[in-house]
Amino acid sequence: MPYEFKLTRRVEFAETDMAGIVHFSNFFRMMESTEHAFFRSLGFSIHRHSEGETIGWPRVSANCDYVRPLRFEDEVEIHLLVAEVRTRSIRYQFVFRKVTDGTEVARGAIAAVCARLDKTTGRLIPLSIPDSIREKITAAPSELLGLRPILTASPS
Amino acid sequence: MPYEFKLTRRVEFAETDMAGIVHFSNFFRMMESTEHAFFRSLGFSIHRHSEGETIGWPRVSANCDYVRPLRFEDEVEIHLLVAEVRTRSIRYQFVFRKVTDGTEVARGAIAAVCARLDKTTGRLIPLSIPDSIREKITAAPSELLGLRPILTASPS
Amino acid sequence: MPYEFKLTRRVEFAETDMAGIVHFSNFFRMMESTEHAFFRSLGFSIHRHSEGETIGWPRVSANCDYVRPLRFEDEVEIHLLVAEVRTRSIRYQFVFRKVTDGTEVARGAIAAVCARLDKTTGRLIPLSIPDSIREKITAAPSELLGLRPILTASPS
Amino acid sequence: MPYEFKLTRRVEFAETDMAGIVHFSNFFRMMESTEHAFFRSLGFSIHRHSEGETIGWPRVSANCDYVRPLRFEDEVEIHLLVAEVRTRSIRYQFVFRKVTDGTEVARGAIAAVCARLDKTTGRLIPLSIPDSIREKITAAPSELLGLRPILTASPS
Repeated sequence: MPYEFKLTRRVEFAETDMAGIVHFSNFFRMMESTEHAFFRSLGFSIHRHSEGETIGWPRVSANCDYVRPLRFEDEVEIHLLVAEVRTRSIRYQFVFRKVTDGTEVARGAIAAVCARLDKTTGRLIPLSIPDSIREKITAAPSELLGLRPILTASPS
Repeated sequence: MPYEFKLTRRVEFAETDMAGIVHFSNFFRMMESTEHAFFRSLGFSIHRHSEGETIGWPRVSANCDYVRPLRFEDEVEIHLLVAEVRTRSIRYQFVFRKVTDGTEVARGAIAAVCARLDKTTGRLIPLSIPDSIREKITAAPSELLGLRPILTASPS
Repeated sequence: MPYEFKLTRRVEFAETDMAGIVHFSNFFRMMESTEHAFFRSLGFSIHRHSEGETIGWPRVSANCDYVRPLRFEDEVEIHLLVAEVRTRSIRYQFVFRKVTDGTEVARGAIAAVCARLDKTTGRLIPLSIPDSIREKITAAPSELLGLRPILTASPS
Repeated sequence: MPYEFKLTRRVEFAETDMAGIVHFSNFFRMMESTEHAFFRSLGFSIHRHSEGETIGWPRVSANCDYVRPLRFEDEVEIHLLVAEVRTRSIRYQFVFRKVTDGTEVARGAIAAVCARLDKTTGRLIPLSIPDSIREKITAAPSELLGLRPILTASPS
């Protein structure tokens, strides 16, 4: 069963900031885009309407450690690993690497909960992950999830 | 010495997504805007040119836990606390609360390192926090930093 | 009857790009934020749910001419003028000026059509502007709309 | 000589807004990304450092007419045509079409001026388009540029 996915994309101009590098908030958008492409690769949409219901995956938490900057027109590979599948939520890990030389750029995680959008109130109501999805997603082997600290030389 | 700052703003339409709530990546932009307003309140710019040098604060890590959604036109207060001041880096905590009723919406953190932008190479080179800044920023008392886990009822 | 509105805001870091200036797409977000603040000033929300309906104002067209760059932490005033009120649409003009010296930075326009969001199909269906809104908005006097070309010294 | 380019991409979640459609400002980012991919296809970067200089293409004007909404996961083709090459500036036209059925979604234009970034002042100084670029770009035949109004049924 699938537990990983890789997306490769090129940094766009609008993603940079005046420091000449990709704005840190955009790493979260790249993680999310990879998660959504992973879902599409399984035949799902992350946000789907069926039988009058809209089911989505609001985020519970997200984090990112930044190792090196990404710049305009850099090609970056975002490597998603499913870290955990719970009753109502999934946790993903992401590693960003430059395509040119494989150097690690950043490492992050997102936890998302399966939820139904109540159209009258606009509320997001958590629900158990549908079997059709659960059957297709599994956690990666723990040796792949390697939770080693990435910032060995942390700022002091 | 200052160790906290509050910024109040209203959610803009472009910050929402098709789930009808503020996109999770925008909480990181709001944290950053609050950090920058904190710097301005001390008489600094977070990104300053002086004597031919540009000094900035690239992010080392960032995280956010999402408790409740924010919606269009909601007024939100972002409460910054300085969590730690190190030789070359500062760590901040942020709590997001709705202005109307004070309910906590999200809680996050950013660690940023002081760096010089090398204009010929474009590299960011970490450097010790200038005394002029260090003299004005201190860590908040530990009892304020309350590192309790916010998601006691984590998704299961 | 109101035909103008002014919003003042400060340029945020995430709005800049690697050229060190506000990314051109963000001027459109600033125009929209001003339009929405104008609506709030009249007691409306630009996107409102009432009696099970959601009414919004999708854009029909938008344009902007850029005269000078805006930079991080610049304070800018966005001056909205109602250019035309039609049966189902409103056209706005916007002038961006630096607060410090009043120099014109950019000039743009947005035409938006009143529409109802059909929740089952997700379609936006144009409808006549509700009287409650029409009664409060009028076009600015033509002498204020001054449609002079702003780029007299166009690039050659 | 090249005068056109096509880019195909899929709408990402973060590009949508609470109306369930792509936020209008993101069409400008898509136009720009297509322009930059066009430059790359010619062997250039739109923002390049050479001999201590940084040359970019700040925008002089931009506009877009919106015909139909784009939604999450829609595949869209952005068709760039070079509309005019002047001494110091280039004007592009763009047509957005859904990949699934070819329906036109939007139509826009960008005029960009060639400029040198002065690193000490941060100013953008217009300059003549370098021959190396001029030799590779030409205006599309006028019959392709078809400036027919696209909104025959304009909102009334």
